[in-house]
Amino acid sequence: MTRETSTSSMVNGFDVSTIGELEPDLRQHVERRRSVLGPGYRLLYRHPVRFARAEGVYLYDHDGHAYLDAYNNVPSVGHCHPRVVQAISQQAAALNVHTRYGTDLLLEYAERLVATFPPELGNVMFACTGSEAVDLALRVARFATGAPGVIVTSNAYHGITAAAAEISPSLGPDVPLGPQVWTVAPPSPDGQTGAAVGQALAARVRRAVADMNRHGVRFAAFIADSLFSSDGIIPEPAGLLGPVIEAVHEAGGLYIADEVQPGFARTGDAMWGFQRHGITPDLAVMGKPMGNGMPIAGIAVRPELLAEFGQKIRYFNTFGGNSVCVAAAAAVLDVIEDEGLMENSRVVGAALREAVAQASLGHPGVRDVRGAGLYVAVEFADPATGEPDAQAALGVVNDLRERRVLISATGPHGNVLKIRPPLPFTTAHVDQFMDAYAGSLAGRTPPGE
Amino acid sequence: MTRETSTSSMVNGFDVSTIGELEPDLRQHVERRRSVLGPGYRLLYRHPVRFARAEGVYLYDHDGHAYLDAYNNVPSVGHCHPRVVQAISQQAAALNVHTRYGTDLLLEYAERLVATFPPELGNVMFACTGSEAVDLALRVARFATGAPGVIVTSNAYHGITAAAAEISPSLGPDVPLGPQVWTVAPPSPDGQTGAAVGQALAARVRRAVADMNRHGVRFAAFIADSLFSSDGIIPEPAGLLGPVIEAVHEAGGLYIADEVQPGFARTGDAMWGFQRHGITPDLAVMGKPMGNGMPIAGIAVRPELLAEFGQKIRYFNTFGGNSVCVAAAAAVLDVIEDEGLMENSRVVGAALREAVAQASLGHPGVRDVRGAGLYVAVEFADPATGEPDAQAALGVVNDLRERRVLISATGPHGNVLKIRPPLPFTTAHVDQFMDAYAGSLAGRTPPGE
Repeated sequence: MTRETSTSSMVNGFDVSTIGELEPDLRQHVERRRSVLGPGYRLLYRHPVRFARAEGVYLYDHDGHAYLDAYNNVPSVGHCHPRVVQAISQQAAALNVHTRYGTDLLLEYAERLVATFPPELGNVMFACTGSEAVDLALRVARFATGAPGVIVTSNAYHGITAAAAEISPSLGPDVPLGPQVWTVAPPSPDGQTGAAVGQALAARVRRAVADMNRHGVRFAAFIADSLFSSDGIIPEPAGLLGPVIEAVHEAGGLYIADEVQPGFARTGDAMWGFQRHGITPDLAVMGKPMGNGMPIAGIAVRPELLAEFGQKIRYFNTFGGNSVCVAAAAAVLDVIEDEGLMENSRVVGAALREAVAQASLGHPGVRDVRGAGLYVAVEFADPATGEPDAQAALGVVNDLRERRVLISATGPHGNVLKIRPPLPFTTAHVDQFMDAYAGSLAGRTPPGE
Repeated sequence: MTRETSTSSMVNGFDVSTIGELEPDLRQHVERRRSVLGPGYRLLYRHPVRFARAEGVYLYDHDGHAYLDAYNNVPSVGHCHPRVVQAISQQAAALNVHTRYGTDLLLEYAERLVATFPPELGNVMFACTGSEAVDLALRVARFATGAPGVIVTSNAYHGITAAAAEISPSLGPDVPLGPQVWTVAPPSPDGQTGAAVGQALAARVRRAVADMNRHGVRFAAFIADSLFSSDGIIPEPAGLLGPVIEAVHEAGGLYIADEVQPGFARTGDAMWGFQRHGITPDLAVMGKPMGNGMPIAGIAVRPELLAEFGQKIRYFNTFGGNSVCVAAAAAVLDVIEDEGLMENSRVVGAALREAVAQASLGHPGVRDVRGAGLYVAVEFADPATGEPDAQAALGVVNDLRERRVLISATGPHGNVLKIRPPLPFTTAHVDQFMDAYAGSLAGRTPPGE
């Protein structure tokens, strides 16, 4: 926990006070970064990594050592995927304009993207980052409802614009929640049936709305990551969001699905995380994997919510939907389809989850293994006390880094491994991952032994 | 003014109610856009344009017709500049990661960028859009001062995140200013000496601070575009910001220079717009031209302002400073240097301004011609009443579009031509522009004649 405090609630951040332990080259790099970028820029790991190139599911350092990427969901169809690279290169050489000129490229991509959503979400708008898209979704929701109140889960993360940060409790105590922001505990599946989990969360949302109203604040929207990533990755039970969206609509609010993490086939069983729960939100927010690393994000939204907003509010994002980023995003859809990456995420994700479970569950420090598609969580707890064990999780994360395998950790206590590789992960990569993972786990002496 | 109202204070937006006047192909394009993107997406011009490719200072439609670009400052070193394209293509094929892994590319670019600023602005941080960078600058300024109050000019534009929009009065009456936002009239050079213009603005800032304090709001920051673009483009007199920054500092506030428009050599006499005024701001915001169309933006900031913010506030922008956008931005600096684009902006900008002045000033509808570097403004007023004449300006803008020359209009009344070509504009392009411009102006019957 001291590490968490020293890095402002950032799980797995490098602690600059340990800079003296680094090799001279790396130390100099970190010092130069610190000098020019200031203290806000954090590197991952106790022993930070520097990279020179990347390909598929591997990153390479300056000595040519390969690191297996079991963490990055942004290069979702694989680092430097040739089709995406080609799309970027060709478009950059041909045309790169904003959306106030007509281009067939923008139109065709928008139509293609909207077709991946339920028909009710008939409009898309583009931004550059998930934060900007969340910020826009909030603007639309507050404009449409005329209300300011927002409900989020208790360790939610939705972004870093001022408006997104104030609905992101996971940023820690130094980033105040907005006065019009209420929190609810995330789903708690332990020992409950699927229906009960959703109903319990719905009841918490109802109580939050009532409390909000009691304070004179009207309810605009509930927003949640459909995988509850920063709350510790809670993918199950499928269907749990059904009672929640009912409660939101009963209270006159809008449901915003934050699909930045679960979207674009990550969960293996659907293009969008909310589809696993059988709901149709009012707005959906897209980001990270959309352009395989190029800055493109957006919202999908019910057209009736945009009718007045679009007329009255001039929203023009200079780079949002620019030609090069759209070309990259279109190539991402091509690759997901042509390489069967959703199915791959389902099948290889299940194999990864099973292998991790098999290797972990005998370990007394592991409390749970869960996941959806290529997004696997391993929760650590002290076997004696049952308390969340961040040090155990961080130990594995940093040990794996020394074995040149990249993952990180998440959750309100930082005790949950986040294993979330690019989608073209194969069973051979699973085997490579498991060799390292089993070694890391075996190397750990659980507390109390 | 009716047009402005119908497009939510957007100057030179296509009015969708006139869709019946468009040729069938374009009409279908506009209808499909409207259907999928909703009413928030506006095209420029009465007769919108569609483009298929671009090169240098020309854009080309699907029939191969060339349009002279005298408007776009984003592709600042020229559309599809081969060195930028090559940098993007090579980097996209090699590595594209976020800033939590070390890369030499990020470090070297950050050091190079910071060296273009006065030494006091010793840190840079990266975002994807000018809006995000403004949002971050506000977060830093409010955190550092512990105060919320912001002063802007009366028709300022600073962006479209919730926090940036609420300090952007130019977005029109449907986007409320924040309760902690005060406005002051922009510089008014008419018939005053240089020192008097700055002192008058400084006096308005002092009065705004006093009024803000009287309402119980403490002062955080004054933010202004160093060229006052949306206030009608007010580059002169150089030095006017000196008294203003003094007033801001006396009141305990921070000065934020919005360099999204003037930055990266646009003004011809300096890399940054504030340098023309001999001031060193506390924060500077960069955006549009930074990556020649790639989404990269940032702030330069006094390190002491980041010391605590950086420690306590986790600011991680997934795409901010990603390798591909940084490679593009580094190539932009290369091209500015190697092609002498600052000097070109100064010399060709002066030639353009003189030619425009010569052609315009005899015209009874033209009230003023002004500018800095390759940013030229022509202000239209009714010769009889002296009232701002938006219809005259829009008439020229739309007539030039039919002559395949791209400009637009700005200012609180929409009566100021915005002539702002990519920086590699040559005297031959000036000649081509002037042929069209003189024709447009000659074709207009000024009101009252």
